[in-house]
Amino acid sequence: MKSGAIIVSVGDELLAGRVLDTNAHVLSRALRVAGFPVRERRTAPDDVAAAADAIRESLSKAAVVVVTGGLGPTKDDLTRDAVAAALGVRLVRDPRAAAMLAATYARLGRVAPPGSDVQADLPEGTAPIENLRGTAPGILSAGPEGVLFVAPGVPSELLGMMEHSLLPLLATRPERGPAPRLRQATIAGVAEVVVGRLVADLMERGRDPVVGSYPKQGRVVLALESSAADPELADRLLAADLAAIRARFGDAFVGEGDLALNEVCAAVLLQRGTTIAVAESVTGGLLSDGLVEVPGISAVFRAGFAVYSNDAKRDLLGVPEEIFASDGAVSERCVRAMAEGARRVARADVGLATSGIAGPTGGSPAKPVGTVWFAVADAAGTTAARFTFPGERAAIRRYARERAFDLLRRRLLGLGPVV
Amino acid sequence: MKSGAIIVSVGDELLAGRVLDTNAHVLSRALRVAGFPVRERRTAPDDVAAAADAIRESLSKAAVVVVTGGLGPTKDDLTRDAVAAALGVRLVRDPRAAAMLAATYARLGRVAPPGSDVQADLPEGTAPIENLRGTAPGILSAGPEGVLFVAPGVPSELLGMMEHSLLPLLATRPERGPAPRLRQATIAGVAEVVVGRLVADLMERGRDPVVGSYPKQGRVVLALESSAADPELADRLLAADLAAIRARFGDAFVGEGDLALNEVCAAVLLQRGTTIAVAESVTGGLLSDGLVEVPGISAVFRAGFAVYSNDAKRDLLGVPEEIFASDGAVSERCVRAMAEGARRVARADVGLATSGIAGPTGGSPAKPVGTVWFAVADAAGTTAARFTFPGERAAIRRYARERAFDLLRRRLLGLGPVV
Repeated sequence: MKSGAIIVSVGDELLAGRVLDTNAHVLSRALRVAGFPVRERRTAPDDVAAAADAIRESLSKAAVVVVTGGLGPTKDDLTRDAVAAALGVRLVRDPRAAAMLAATYARLGRVAPPGSDVQADLPEGTAPIENLRGTAPGILSAGPEGVLFVAPGVPSELLGMMEHSLLPLLATRPERGPAPRLRQATIAGVAEVVVGRLVADLMERGRDPVVGSYPKQGRVVLALESSAADPELADRLLAADLAAIRARFGDAFVGEGDLALNEVCAAVLLQRGTTIAVAESVTGGLLSDGLVEVPGISAVFRAGFAVYSNDAKRDLLGVPEEIFASDGAVSERCVRAMAEGARRVARADVGLATSGIAGPTGGSPAKPVGTVWFAVADAAGTTAARFTFPGERAAIRRYARERAFDLLRRRLLGLGPVV
Repeated sequence: MKSGAIIVSVGDELLAGRVLDTNAHVLSRALRVAGFPVRERRTAPDDVAAAADAIRESLSKAAVVVVTGGLGPTKDDLTRDAVAAALGVRLVRDPRAAAMLAATYARLGRVAPPGSDVQADLPEGTAPIENLRGTAPGILSAGPEGVLFVAPGVPSELLGMMEHSLLPLLATRPERGPAPRLRQATIAGVAEVVVGRLVADLMERGRDPVVGSYPKQGRVVLALESSAADPELADRLLAADLAAIRARFGDAFVGEGDLALNEVCAAVLLQRGTTIAVAESVTGGLLSDGLVEVPGISAVFRAGFAVYSNDAKRDLLGVPEEIFASDGAVSERCVRAMAEGARRVARADVGLATSGIAGPTGGSPAKPVGTVWFAVADAAGTTAARFTFPGERAAIRRYARERAFDLLRRRLLGLGPVV
């Protein structure tokens, strides 16, 4: 019996480097957890013969083949034809798919545009897959010989179909392998090379569990996987490693799982009813965004101030004008005044502020590009910290966002400063 | 003669969905511009036989095969063995590679760790490629039959090798195709299916130039490519198509290129010295972030207010309390008051505001999840518009960001509203 999965991504825009293929990435993880580890991935052009070859070869090797992209209504959407060619059948107008399309346009309150009906054409003998987030239905062929699952390339539509249709189907398939025993841990405020050194013994090859480290936007995620056949033994081994990791990293251990620092902070704020205001210069909106990403945050998020100019820092938050001349806007005094000002103006329990130099210009020997000051103010007082981040404007701003939320996390939980 | 390129990415971490393969994306674009369009991409596991198969098949099809990943010193770095197997030769210790390794460790001031010397093993008959940003040398096999270029998977090391070794080599190869004549156009505020209908004739297969459409976060990018052998003819054909596209889309034609709406708006604001303030509820920080992404924006970005709660809308922007009871926060009156309040409080020329329901809860039949109100206020008055976006919280917020910048663009340029 065939096992595992192969992913075929279809699209000239992928091969031209115009669009990054995040679909294959997300699918890889989901298929693995579902008991269908991905054996191989392929990216094929918008060309019926080439895409059909990739699909046909994949069907001969794996129990599950997931194809993404090229299901839209335009003339360069040729995946329907490629799937039909790979299966050796013709395309036929499918009444179920046509009904799905009509229902979708009705739901959106739109008239189906001319030409959109080709999205109801399916390879003979296949079934449509409902698309709850877009128009084009997917294509399903499932039988004793395996599963072929074809979804649109728009990420939200693919993810919806994966959750609603693919994963439930895979749970019923006889080719399903054991779900891997996986655990993760998130470390914040420690460089990956240092993380690697602190867990070098756990990362030895051939050891069980095997531990890998993955840098993620200013955090490091440790992934632990046990191959012990006995699930109880596997869980015991994983728990022992997690305990060791927690002990070695102390306050830098954010928690178990792949944890986003903004979500960790939001959960603490919501649980305690602690209100917050943010004052952002270099991060300009990223801290507000990190809070608003979390549903229900309006209960504690008092206000965010994007104060990128000195005038705004002075007028909206009361930063004393003389600080700009004496210390500059990227300084401990300024960022403290920003955090305290945001807290005061918005009548919040906590104020969080950033001020830095994202570049490409504005750096100096004393304050190079990448220099960022942070402050957290609450009823007990204000703390400030300075870090220098590598990279370019976008990277510096993202690092600063993560570090700001880590400093907030440490303050909220009464932990020590970053060492 | 074979033409084009195939990329083979090697690594269990890719197939497990732990690491996103940005290397293949960056290589795809660079190879295409270098005259070696990517015909196909493959991702193979850390398995000698499977990786060797992928490399061998790729060598039989393309003039250039680029392999990334699996060159490090650890036991799961098996790409050297896979390349040797694909070429049908054995691995030998290469004195040039050994000298590169020694020089690298000397430059880093480190002692070469035990086991690191395997990085100097090369398939017989191949040459090492210098790695200026890491330790493992690459592997090069170049002859009349084509090019095999093997680089580490660490993105910075791969990119360094691509710039310093791969691209200069490709410029000398006889299989090099013409540099593609590419143009792009950005359309905003029009659904992809409608875009496709309006340029269906330009998207016909076999036509020159060929036109493709790519949805990008609320915009649609049209990519035009001519395969005419005569560059002047190609440019004339592309210019004619661009003129046709511009005429057909009118105000929805943002401009030539893959244009980000926030950058388009920022350029107009900066050029005219028009100051702006934003008031964000549903987008909570995304509009500020879109402005601060642009260096130098402090000259015109007066302030951003993330006012996610009704209290903040009232206290910071002066939205009348009675609006929340009579119309609700997601309403034309509220969003107008927000835009006007932001403009007034921050003393800006333009105020831009959003208020909507990102979900997952908070929707109603009259205002379902995805409903977003927008307003733009300036000295000439205030305009407001309502849209309903599909998808989940993150997608709705991203769409709202793009739509807000498109409305701002239209107002700044004196264009008509979205139809």
